[in-house]
Amino acid sequence: MSVDLQALGRRAKIAAPKLARLNTQQRNEALLAIADALEAHTDEILAANAKDVEAARAKGLTDALVDRLNLQGRLTGIVADVRKIVALPDPVGCEYDQRVLENGLRIARRTTPIGVIGVIYEARPNVTVDVVTLCIKSGNAVLLRGGSETIESNTALVRVMKAALAQTAVPTDGIQLIESTDRDLILAMLHMYEYIDMIIPRGGAALHKLCRENSMIPVITGGIGVCHIYVDETADQERALEIIYNAKTSRPSVCNSLDTVLVNEKIAAEFLPRVVDFLSAGGVTFRAEPRALAALNGITQKGVQAARPEDFDTEWMSLVLGLKVVDTLDEAIEHINTHSQNHSDSILTHNMADAERFLNEVDSSAVFVNASTRFNDGAQFGLGAEIAVSTQKLHARGPMGLEELTTYKWVVIGDGQIRV
Amino acid sequence: MSVDLQALGRRAKIAAPKLARLNTQQRNEALLAIADALEAHTDEILAANAKDVEAARAKGLTDALVDRLNLQGRLTGIVADVRKIVALPDPVGCEYDQRVLENGLRIARRTTPIGVIGVIYEARPNVTVDVVTLCIKSGNAVLLRGGSETIESNTALVRVMKAALAQTAVPTDGIQLIESTDRDLILAMLHMYEYIDMIIPRGGAALHKLCRENSMIPVITGGIGVCHIYVDETADQERALEIIYNAKTSRPSVCNSLDTVLVNEKIAAEFLPRVVDFLSAGGVTFRAEPRALAALNGITQKGVQAARPEDFDTEWMSLVLGLKVVDTLDEAIEHINTHSQNHSDSILTHNMADAERFLNEVDSSAVFVNASTRFNDGAQFGLGAEIAVSTQKLHARGPMGLEELTTYKWVVIGDGQIRV
Repeated sequence: MSVDLQALGRRAKIAAPKLARLNTQQRNEALLAIADALEAHTDEILAANAKDVEAARAKGLTDALVDRLNLQGRLTGIVADVRKIVALPDPVGCEYDQRVLENGLRIARRTTPIGVIGVIYEARPNVTVDVVTLCIKSGNAVLLRGGSETIESNTALVRVMKAALAQTAVPTDGIQLIESTDRDLILAMLHMYEYIDMIIPRGGAALHKLCRENSMIPVITGGIGVCHIYVDETADQERALEIIYNAKTSRPSVCNSLDTVLVNEKIAAEFLPRVVDFLSAGGVTFRAEPRALAALNGITQKGVQAARPEDFDTEWMSLVLGLKVVDTLDEAIEHINTHSQNHSDSILTHNMADAERFLNEVDSSAVFVNASTRFNDGAQFGLGAEIAVSTQKLHARGPMGLEELTTYKWVVIGDGQIRV
Repeated sequence: MSVDLQALGRRAKIAAPKLARLNTQQRNEALLAIADALEAHTDEILAANAKDVEAARAKGLTDALVDRLNLQGRLTGIVADVRKIVALPDPVGCEYDQRVLENGLRIARRTTPIGVIGVIYEARPNVTVDVVTLCIKSGNAVLLRGGSETIESNTALVRVMKAALAQTAVPTDGIQLIESTDRDLILAMLHMYEYIDMIIPRGGAALHKLCRENSMIPVITGGIGVCHIYVDETADQERALEIIYNAKTSRPSVCNSLDTVLVNEKIAAEFLPRVVDFLSAGGVTFRAEPRALAALNGITQKGVQAARPEDFDTEWMSLVLGLKVVDTLDEAIEHINTHSQNHSDSILTHNMADAERFLNEVDSSAVFVNASTRFNDGAQFGLGAEIAVSTQKLHARGPMGLEELTTYKWVVIGDGQIRV
């Protein structure tokens, strides 16, 4: 199917200022209309989704992948999430850094929508609703490019949402879906800086690299984590085992799950066998570098095997855990800053000076003391919503909620001031 | 001269975390050492600068351009500015958005240096000192690419500053100057995302376009403004004349100076002749679209000529002013959002509802009510310093001071919390 991408971008760009100037109530009414419409059109949406599921099975996708794109039984939760967004505070129009200058000018930074957000994502149709509703809530227009495996679902979802918007103050052109699975359109989209203000890729490392290397539009990279926990000799070992177990096993396929445990050499011989005992009961297997293997007395039962060097640069996304012994806090920080993807890292210690050094010197989006890395999440941090987790440093770092879908302008009110 | 750009980047990248972990006093001591060294080596710096000035004259550069790169008589002011930066508050390590979650986790955003800042600039050697000292103050390493016309001055300045740093805690590798005028190195620099975290171009539209279209590193575009003042029928016309005069004539060559005056049709016949009278006394000439010409009774004396359409997309940088009549506030906002570069725009009015609409709907980095556009400036806004003025929307918008040279990380302190 041929798509006029420039036309989609132009329509979103023209809709953006109209959307930006709506008030809170108008945007919330649109979200409620979307929630109602998704409920009213459940059959239509699930019928479209069933085509995607069938096509995915026919293509031989794994059960896990097919499950990701299946909306059956999930639409109620998706609709409930839309209604939750209505209840969140409006991120637009907030003022901060207010001051009155000596000359009497009153200045402040005032939050405003960014404009048009481009989102490139993979086979999760729930993301379509998430992104559209977070963008409307924050006054932004959006241009969506979803995964080819969910083209039927996405088309149906966007059709239903746009029809709902037609009854509201939000311009339907504020939502644009690229109804094509042509991958060349991604590159074309990345060049459309006249029309798009920010690109959020949600997918694997290859997608992020493609965006970083080709985009002429600011890109939020993230969502990839090689996450570490460093256990020093003062840590409470019982709690350490619980935290490591939680960080590794509670949801191994997500980006804030644990990949590598670093253990101070003073406790390695005592603590590492306990880690292996405790976590192997949960199905975890281990990749241990030589000193960790030695601390384990070279055991290779319980799923312990020698680590290859590249293992410490691997985001496992599964029940595999790297084990390494370090001599000092410095070595732990050095290892983390070399091998992490600047996502989530934690120190378990009772030494608050060392904890403070870890917080300052580990260069990650979220740094933890005596807590699981799994907390790096918009909902957990109280942001109310999450459109992405950024591991780059500009604009937003860590979980991005509604506030991170806004920018600011300087607002200056005078009564005739001139610059002298 | 052949330059190993990768090596420069690697050195800056290695120095960055060392610089980031210094305390406020250590960074301030380094700035004072730089100030002292610039004073002590004035002769050496001016001798190098004299070579640049001589070469510029030999190449036939205009007096204005030669003046821009001349340091004679300016070093005292530059040194005084360095000492002012010492007195500014440390932007690093500030916490905000602190909260205690229900599970007892204490979380906050904590400001941190960005890492390595790449700055590409033109023939202003004072920028070399500005950028280096602002980066040190904010804990960042810096990779500099200055204009070819100031290569001798920049080399001398950086040599003196690095020698000064050798006596301080700041690693000398934290400052890297590309000692080459090979333009291909700019492109190579824009691809070095392993080593550089942010690119700040300071120059004309062509440089900004080059960076936007080629950089794999986040770029802060800005510094270009087609600035507007809209005068409505309720405005105080006496004050309006003073503001327009100030915005146009106080420094016409800078980006926040006025380019176009929009006048409501209700007062056009009364007010536009006054504008022409008042400003032509200051040497201003005018480009008037047909309705403005009509309001001026078609006068073509006093430097009034018919505007060409492209005049309203021109950043004049000189004593030329566009004049246009609009019927409504909507038309004024529409014109501004179409023709501005999102820099600085002002409304002169006594109608506060219209002022509020202007503030919300004009999509510029700074929007003003009853004040001159010339105030869009870091020092004027009380930021204490300015490394650039951003007209893009991510990370920073408007004047960028020390705070805008930092990012943040989430800091989370627990006592054994796991995610349930």
